[in-house]
Amino acid sequence: MRLVRYEGLDGPRYGLLEGDVVRPTTARTLQGALTATASDEAAIPLSEVELLTPVERPRKILGIGVNYAAHAAESVSFIDTKSPQVQKWFNKQATAINAPNGQVHLPKVSDQLDYEVELVAVIGKRGRHVPRERAMEIIAGFCVGCDFSVRDWQKASQTMIMGKGFDTHAPFGPAIVTPDEISDLASVKLRCFVNDELRQTGQVRDMIHDIPAQIAHLTAAFTLEPGDLIFTGTPSGVGAGHTPPKWLKAGDRVRCEIDGVGIIENEIVREPGETIIG
Amino acid sequence: MRLVRYEGLDGPRYGLLEGDVVRPTTARTLQGALTATASDEAAIPLSEVELLTPVERPRKILGIGVNYAAHAAESVSFIDTKSPQVQKWFNKQATAINAPNGQVHLPKVSDQLDYEVELVAVIGKRGRHVPRERAMEIIAGFCVGCDFSVRDWQKASQTMIMGKGFDTHAPFGPAIVTPDEISDLASVKLRCFVNDELRQTGQVRDMIHDIPAQIAHLTAAFTLEPGDLIFTGTPSGVGAGHTPPKWLKAGDRVRCEIDGVGIIENEIVREPGETIIG
Repeated sequence: MRLVRYEGLDGPRYGLLEGDVVRPTTARTLQGALTATASDEAAIPLSEVELLTPVERPRKILGIGVNYAAHAAESVSFIDTKSPQVQKWFNKQATAINAPNGQVHLPKVSDQLDYEVELVAVIGKRGRHVPRERAMEIIAGFCVGCDFSVRDWQKASQTMIMGKGFDTHAPFGPAIVTPDEISDLASVKLRCFVNDELRQTGQVRDMIHDIPAQIAHLTAAFTLEPGDLIFTGTPSGVGAGHTPPKWLKAGDRVRCEIDGVGIIENEIVREPGETIIG
Repeated sequence: MRLVRYEGLDGPRYGLLEGDVVRPTTARTLQGALTATASDEAAIPLSEVELLTPVERPRKILGIGVNYAAHAAESVSFIDTKSPQVQKWFNKQATAINAPNGQVHLPKVSDQLDYEVELVAVIGKRGRHVPRERAMEIIAGFCVGCDFSVRDWQKASQTMIMGKGFDTHAPFGPAIVTPDEISDLASVKLRCFVNDELRQTGQVRDMIHDIPAQIAHLTAAFTLEPGDLIFTGTPSGVGAGHTPPKWLKAGDRVRCEIDGVGIIENEIVREPGETIIG
């Protein structure tokens, strides 16, 4: 099942993505969508649909740092890559979510905007102290995500989170792809293009800490809830890894692809930069 | 105004704390409570009320590390204290919230549980790019909080968040005290007791980065929303700062007091430690 959330005539709702069409369901919540079937309304061509964030308001967005060995090697300038056996978690702020084709902000306060294609796990059930062999039970499905990162803000403090949580910097989608749709998760390949130039390639099997290990570690400390998102790490090829660094500019288009999961594409625009209060 | 959220006969609602009584309002949301007046229902003795978290489900809980100089000196073993001019932010997970008198879990996976009394700012209005001179406009009020920290999990990774986000480790309350109730914020004193032994004392004026500077920095990157919580730093005296360290044990009682804001008290209990799925 491939669940998309889209802007319907009567507000946001979930649909089933089948090829190039969206079959409406009556579900408006993630929990409803996970057991939904197509309604008898007419299918809508995907090209006519405005895709929204597949989860309306995730409460947690967690990301793991340096989780592919080749990326660890290129990351020495912005993260402590000693102790690869230690999982290095950060939060992206919940307000950072963005639609699969949403515009992404070039910050007012930095020129060091970077891309990171990632497989995103969407939590479907509450979980605490989940052993690795049961980890897949709490995963509703997978999305493509881009963990946009502001490198100077990330490097300024060891905790990294200020560079990870800018508004619009967590686009994900296009659909929540349920695990039964993916026959061999380890073989799945990730790619990231900037203006059609291939920058990142990787394969899920190259994760240092696989997804069950991630879930077991996180839930040893706290409860994962339906709608929480886990950004599971990025392969090598980020802008900061080049000499000189290849920072994103306004007008650039970042396309992230994961085989069998989908494609998201985001245009970089200058953020408005205005004071908003209230 | 001192807003408490409590378990009413018909579910959670907000009331006004006046001395030792709670005057019911009809508000059930933070936004409603901020403009609420007492209803004509009878006042309830505070001792008969079950206080809940003053915000039902904050979406973000942010905390600043080493924000009092004396605490920075004692923290060299668990955080990089170089560059005090850099604000060091971490997230506590949104699921970590706990009531002002809720039980706090001694983790299954660690014995290094520590306390940190903190002034907590509750956000009342959306804010982005908020200059320091307007920062108070987005603050609904203040609470007492305890930033419970699991030191070995905090130290294991530079990003710290795994040691900060355990379930139950963010109690706050007892009320949201609106800024007009506090005549001189800088002079306000904080204290933390463990089993009636004074462990921490501090004063808001000793913050390295004051609250307006915190709001300006955070909102340069992302939007703060109503209900978001900011843990504004802890003074010296934490358990990890003693030789040998004074870790919390099951049965300990941690009492955090802030003059003019209130008192919270939390008992330490062993966490159930069971696998929960669904």
